Amino acid sequence: MSTGINPRPWPVPQALPEDAWQRLPSRADAEALSAAARKTYGVPEGADIATAAGTQALIQWLPYLAAPGAVAIVGPTYSEHALAWRNAGHPVIAVDSLDACLDSVVHAVVVNPNNPDGRVTDRATLARVARQLKARGGWLVVDEAFADVDPAVSAVGLCPDLPVLILRSFGKFYGLAGLRLGFGIAAPDTIAGITTALGPWPASGPALVIGAAALGDQPWADRTRHALQQQARALDEVLVKAGFTMAGGTLLFRLARHPQALMLHAALAKQQIWCRSFDWADDLLRFGLPSDAAGLDRLTAALRG
Amino acid sequence: MSTGINPRPWPVPQALPEDAWQRLPSRADAEALSAAARKTYGVPEGADIATAAGTQALIQWLPYLAAPGAVAIVGPTYSEHALAWRNAGHPVIAVDSLDACLDSVVHAVVVNPNNPDGRVTDRATLARVARQLKARGGWLVVDEAFADVDPAVSAVGLCPDLPVLILRSFGKFYGLAGLRLGFGIAAPDTIAGITTALGPWPASGPALVIGAAALGDQPWADRTRHALQQQARALDEVLVKAGFTMAGGTLLFRLARHPQALMLHAALAKQQIWCRSFDWADDLLRFGLPSDAAGLDRLTAALRG
Repeated sequence: MSTGINPRPWPVPQALPEDAWQRLPSRADAEALSAAARKTYGVPEGADIATAAGTQALIQWLPYLAAPGAVAIVGPTYSEHALAWRNAGHPVIAVDSLDACLDSVVHAVVVNPNNPDGRVTDRATLARVARQLKARGGWLVVDEAFADVDPAVSAVGLCPDLPVLILRSFGKFYGLAGLRLGFGIAAPDTIAGITTALGPWPASGPALVIGAAALGDQPWADRTRHALQQQARALDEVLVKAGFTMAGGTLLFRLARHPQALMLHAALAKQQIWCRSFDWADDLLRFGLPSDAAGLDRLTAALRG
Repeated sequence: MSTGINPRPWPVPQALPEDAWQRLPSRADAEALSAAARKTYGVPEGADIATAAGTQALIQWLPYLAAPGAVAIVGPTYSEHALAWRNAGHPVIAVDSLDACLDSVVHAVVVNPNNPDGRVTDRATLARVARQLKARGGWLVVDEAFADVDPAVSAVGLCPDLPVLILRSFGKFYGLAGLRLGFGIAAPDTIAGITTALGPWPASGPALVIGAAALGDQPWADRTRHALQQQARALDEVLVKAGFTMAGGTLLFRLARHPQALMLHAALAKQQIWCRSFDWADDLLRFGLPSDAAGLDRLTAALRG
C-alpha cells in the first residue's frame, strides 16, 4: 500500500508472441502502440507522442533537452522532477502553485492531478502559464501520471499551440509498473527532439505488445475506473473510522491526516503494512489501494491494534 | 539473417513471477542482476556496472554526459554511435583505426570486435589510447556488443585505472533483443554519473529477472559458443560455395565479399531472405546466422537460383 499502482492489473496473457522477447521491436509494433496511446489519451492532430521505457526515462531526459534556465516545480510533489532538473544544471524553484514565482523561470513542472494531495490545476491556468513560458522559449511539463482515473483533467488539447509537454504513465492505472512504459505528448518538433534523444527501441518488445492491447481495452478501463471508485471509498471509510481526516488523493492513492501519523506509520510497518510518510509533513500518510478485501481487513485490524 | 542476434535464444521460462510485470523492479532484483553481470563480464574490483534498457540507451546518454570536445569513431561501424555524439553537439571524426587522428579529439569510440568486419583492437592499443584521452579528460568507449563469443577480447580490466567505458549488450548473444537490456562498465565515479542520469528503474522487471537467470547460466553460454562456431562455419561454407570470399565477422554474423553483392542482396530479398548491405562498400554483405538447418538450406537454394 506504499505505491500508487493499481493492485488489480490489466491481465497480461500467459503466452506472449515468442519473438517479442527475441527480435528488436519492429516499427509496426511501435506504430500499433502509438496509435492505441493516441486514441486512449485523446492526442489531437497537431500533437505527437513519444514512447519511452516509463515516464521516468522522459523525466530524466527533459532537463537535458530543455533550454537553459530555471524551472519552477509545483510542490510538494513527486521528488524525481526536482532531482532530474537540478542534476542537469537547472536552478530549481519550489512553488506552491503554478501562479507563484513565475517571473524568474523559463520552465515549470506540475503534476496534475498532484501526488500526493490530488490537487488539480485547471486548464485555463495551465494555458495562461504556458503562454508566458512560450515567450521565454520554455516548457510547461504536465505530469499526468494519475490522470487515467479522470481523463477529463488532461491538458492534451493545449499541445498543438503551446509548449506544453504531457507525461502519461502506463504502469500505474494498468497496474503494470514493472513493464516500464510511458509516453510524452507535445508539439511535433518537441517530440522529434525527444525521440532523437531516446534513440531506437526505447521500450521492450513485450511492453509494446502488452501496452497496445491494454490501451485498446476500453471496457477494462471503464470497469476499472468504476471499481477504483468503490475501492477508494472503502479505504477512506476504514481510515476515517480509525481517526484519520481525508486530505486528498486520487483514486489510486489516498492522503490522510492524523495527529499521530508517524507513530501509526511505524505501527503499521511492524505489521508489514507499508504506507508513505513525508519529510515535509508529520501528520500526513499516503495509502495505496489494498489488493483485495482481505488486505483492507488487515489494515482495519492493524489500525485498531 | 539481417541482424547479429543469436537466433537460438536462451529459453525464457513460460511463467515469469507475476509481480515482475506489476511492481516496480526492486533493489534486490537490480542487485541480483548486477551481481550476475559482474561475474559473467569479469568486472574487476575498482570498477562498477550500470544497468540500462539496452546499450542503445547508454549510447544515447554518453555524449550528453561526456566532457565537451570532438570524438573519434573507428569505422565503418555501427552507425548509432556517430549519430548520438553528433546529435549532442560533439564534432565527430571518422577514423579507420584507433591510432589515427587522435591528437585533435577528447574522446574515442571503438566497437570491439567491430561490426561488421569483426576486427579486434588489441588491449595494449586500447590502454595506450585511453592514457592519452585521460590527460584530456576524455573517455574511450569500447562497445563490446559482440564480445560474448570471445570473452578474452574484453578490455574490462582497464576500467579501474583508465577512463575506459565498456558497453555490454545482453540481447545479441542471449538472443533476446526485445527484452532491452545492456550494461555500462567503468570507474565508479563515471558509473555514478550514468546511473544518476538514467534515473530509477531503467530496465523492466522481466529484464532483471530473465537477465539474471540467463547470465548465471554458464553451461548454456559454453554450449552456445561451441554451437555458434559450428553454425558460423556452416554458413561460411555455403557462402564460399556460392562465390563469396569471407571478409570478417564474429560468430554472430559473417561479412562476405562478392563482386555482385548488391545484385545478390536484391535477389535474396525477393526470396524473403534479408541480409545487410552497406552504403560504403558495394561488394560486401553481412549475414546473420540462419535460425536452423532449414534456413541454411533455403539460403543455399536461393544463392544457387
